[in-house]
Parts: sequence; structure tokens; C-alpha cells
Amino acid sequence: LIIKVGGAAGIDYDFLCEDIATLWQENKSLVLVHGGSSFTDELSRKLDHPPRFVTSVSGIQSRFTDRETLEIFEMAYCGKMNKGIVERLQRLEVNAVGLSGLDGRIWEGPRKTTLKIVENGKRKVLRGDHTGRVERVNINLIEMLLENGYLPVLTPPAASFDGEAINVDGDRAAAVLGAALKADTVLFLSNVPGLLKDVEDEKSLIKKLCLKDLESAKNDIARGRMKKKVMGAGEAIEAGVGRCIFGDARIPQPVRSALEGRGTVIERG
Amino acid sequence: LIIKVGGAAGIDYDFLCEDIATLWQENKSLVLVHGGSSFTDELSRKLDHPPRFVTSVSGIQSRFTDRETLEIFEMAYCGKMNKGIVERLQRLEVNAVGLSGLDGRIWEGPRKTTLKIVENGKRKVLRGDHTGRVERVNINLIEMLLENGYLPVLTPPAASFDGEAINVDGDRAAAVLGAALKADTVLFLSNVPGLLKDVEDEKSLIKKLCLKDLESAKNDIARGRMKKKVMGAGEAIEAGVGRCIFGDARIPQPVRSALEGRGTVIERG
Repeated sequence: LIIKVGGAAGIDYDFLCEDIATLWQENKSLVLVHGGSSFTDELSRKLDHPPRFVTSVSGIQSRFTDRETLEIFEMAYCGKMNKGIVERLQRLEVNAVGLSGLDGRIWEGPRKTTLKIVENGKRKVLRGDHTGRVERVNINLIEMLLENGYLPVLTPPAASFDGEAINVDGDRAAAVLGAALKADTVLFLSNVPGLLKDVEDEKSLIKKLCLKDLESAKNDIARGRMKKKVMGAGEAIEAGVGRCIFGDARIPQPVRSALEGRGTVIERG
Repeated sequence: LIIKVGGAAGIDYDFLCEDIATLWQENKSLVLVHGGSSFTDELSRKLDHPPRFVTSVSGIQSRFTDRETLEIFEMAYCGKMNKGIVERLQRLEVNAVGLSGLDGRIWEGPRKTTLKIVENGKRKVLRGDHTGRVERVNINLIEMLLENGYLPVLTPPAASFDGEAINVDGDRAAAVLGAALKADTVLFLSNVPGLLKDVEDEKSLIKKLCLKDLESAKNDIARGRMKKKVMGAGEAIEAGVGRCIFGDARIPQPVRSALEGRGTVIERG
């Protein structure tokens, strides 16, 4: 089981960690992946280096990550968020180990230094970007931790093939991890109940999707960050993960609820 | 070999990591411990929560660590500093893994919630402190990493016995780690050439000390943070570490230089 929890406002990390602690006592084969976008934005603004979001020519939104942003990102994700989650789990007697994808090259892939974007209707090239995508997973380190009773708590950045820190999308990194570990289930928990037909109406939840629906779901239904979750889910299932579930991380027992099918369940067939 | 490098201004982490990378190719039994005090001070000021240093009734200086300070501390130590060092090592093809003492309870000990201090000549009690000291080391996790070719890069905080994050002194934590791993040598690298008779004069370096000299060296010669290094060295040697060396982290090949005896060498006899 891979649990990916986002970094958006409204997510309740206490509920999440309590739920994980109970599950962990039953079955010690679980990896937690987390984000930290909302706190990164807040910290960037406080440090007078406000976030800059750009839209690629293919219509995907991402954070432009110059060196200063990368370091703020590391402070937020690897410092405050990662250690905050590890501390919550340690207080609940789960022996958590917090790592970034850079550590032991858990997540490795190519760096992208230039970004082709569309801004005010015009195409532009941005240089000095520290982003990339995950192509390779060091499953030995993860399995070694699991076999010895440690719960891995993973977060971006990843490592480029040259060993540089690169900002990668956490959802897609969790999907690649799930595929590499041949996970039964990858949960994507965020501050919405799942994939919504109408983002304004939480009752418009789509309960089931199969692989062939994902392309149109990504293009026609998903908005903003949900697009990457849909892409990640598709990649994970293509690579052999049993199912992906988009669930709500604002409620008590968020993991159990999602595993019971509350949310959007995505399967191959 | 345990290398502790401080977090003070002037330390050259590029020199340090290049030196470690060469040593690592020869012998993969090395642990790096680092601090981050100078950047923590800078970040605290930028985030409008300036550092507060207090002097205990026994004359030891430390950082008063309320919850907000603890989180800033984690951002600086576990985020920017730790990942910056891991990245430098990864770029040099050393498979480094960055961890705090909270992860896997590598460093564990009692929390101190109140601090008895002297301020303007008066005794005071400060509450809400998140500090402590390391009493127990999870050497299994460290040895597992070393046996599998990973270089552990450790930093405070540690875990309290209840699993809370606690700010601990990095020098003394490195000393306890050295003792637990039965290290031959613990190096303490900082922005001075070693223990100086006169802090204003770098030529007044004390080249050798033995265990029985340490108490008076701590009381009569060491100033500020050097007091904790002297205490750490004493504790390490008492616990069976072969020798401790205080060396200079501002120069090329800082580790080799210290191992060759440049700096203050402390031995039992």
C-alpha cells in the first residue's frame, strides 16, 4: 500500500497519522509519500520570493523552481512537513523514517533545465529550472527499511542522474514508486473527496473509472493539480498497480475510508 | 570515523564534501553529523522570530527552543542544510542518506521542558522548551545503511522518549554516536583551527590534550560553543572512542588535515 497525501490547505495530518498508526500495527507494508505545496507558498511569500506558477505548452501547471525556490521547497517539504509527519508517527509509536527522493537516490530521473511555457497567450522559454521527473526507484533502500520495521515517509525533491536535487511532482513520483514496488493500491489523498464532475459541487463525485476513461477524464474533467493525479493513476495502473483511489484527507480515518471505496476508485478493467 | 561539522559562518561545505568523497572511495565506514546554527539564526530573523540565546545556571549557552523555533530549526537543519550536503555528496557519487535523529529514533533521550537560566544576573525559569539530550543511539539503522554502502548524514533534532522532536546539541550527539559505534576517531570541525588559548589569536592553538586536562580546559579556556565540544570529546573518550580532534572546516581537505594532526588532538593518556 502506498499512501500519497498532498500538501494543500485543509488536510488533517493528525487524522491521517492516527489512521496510519492503526493500520501499521496490522500490516507493516506501507509507504507514505507527502507534499507540502501550501506551506511552500506561504514560506516563499514570507521570505520575499513569492511562488511563480507557470503553464506548460501542453497545458500542465507547475511551480517554476529556480535555485532559491528549490531551497525554500526543501525547507518546507524536507524540514517542516516531513519532520512534522515523522514526529506525529513517532508519538504514536510508529518507527517512521523521513527521507527525500534525493537520499539514497530513492527517486532518480532526468533534470529539465528549461521550461517551455505559455504566458499571456505567448510562448516563452524559462531557464534555470530545477525540475524533472522520476524514472527510476531505488527499491532496495525502501524494502530494507520495511523489512526492518521502519515506515518510510518520502517527499520530493528527487535526484537527477547527475545527483542534483530536482523538484518532481509528488503524485507522479508516488505512482512510479507504486509500480516499482508492485503495490496493490496507491491512494491519493487530498482536500477534495475525489475526482469531481463539477469542482464546485462535492456531490458530483465520480465513483469509478477504468483505464480507458482516464485520458478523457484528464482532459475534460480534471482541473489543476487533479490532472497530475489522473496521469499518475494511469501510469501506475499501466505499470501493474492493482488500483488507485482518490480520497479525502480532511476527514477522520481518511485511509480506511478510501480503502472502503469512498472516493474515486480507478481500476484497469 | 565520525565527522561532526558545525553550522557556523565560514565553513566550506564544498571542501568538506570533496574530501569526504575521496575518503569514502577508500573506506566506507564513515558517518557525517552536521549543524546549522548560523543559517537557523538568519532564517529566524527573516521569519520575524529572532533567536533567543540563554545561559543556564551552570554557565552553558543554548538556544531557547519554543515550538516555532523548533520548526524553523527543522527547516534549516533538516531542509536546507541536510539536503544541501546530501546533494553535494550525491553529485560526487557518494550515495548519501540524510536523516535527523528523530528518524528511526536514531538519537533518543529525555526532553527538558523547562530551562533554568540566568538573565541580567537574575535566575529565571523558562517553560515550553523543546530541548533535551541524547542518551540512546539506534545503531542498527546506522549500521544497516553503512553495510549497504550508504553514507549517513545526520542532524538534530533527536526524539524524546515520547517521540517528540527535541533540539539537542550536535557536538554532544556526535560524541554519543561515536561511543555507541565504538569509533576510532571523532572529528569536530568548525570555523576555528581547534581549541585556542586566546580566542583572538589563531596561533595560540593547543595541539594536544589528555582526558584529565579536559575539565580545566572546559572551564578556563573554552568559550561559547567550544565548551560543548570539549564536553563531548570528554564523554566520547570516557565511553571508549580512541581520540577526538578539533579541526578547521574552512580549509581544503579539512578531514585529512585534522586526521594528520592539524588541530587539537585529544586522547585518553
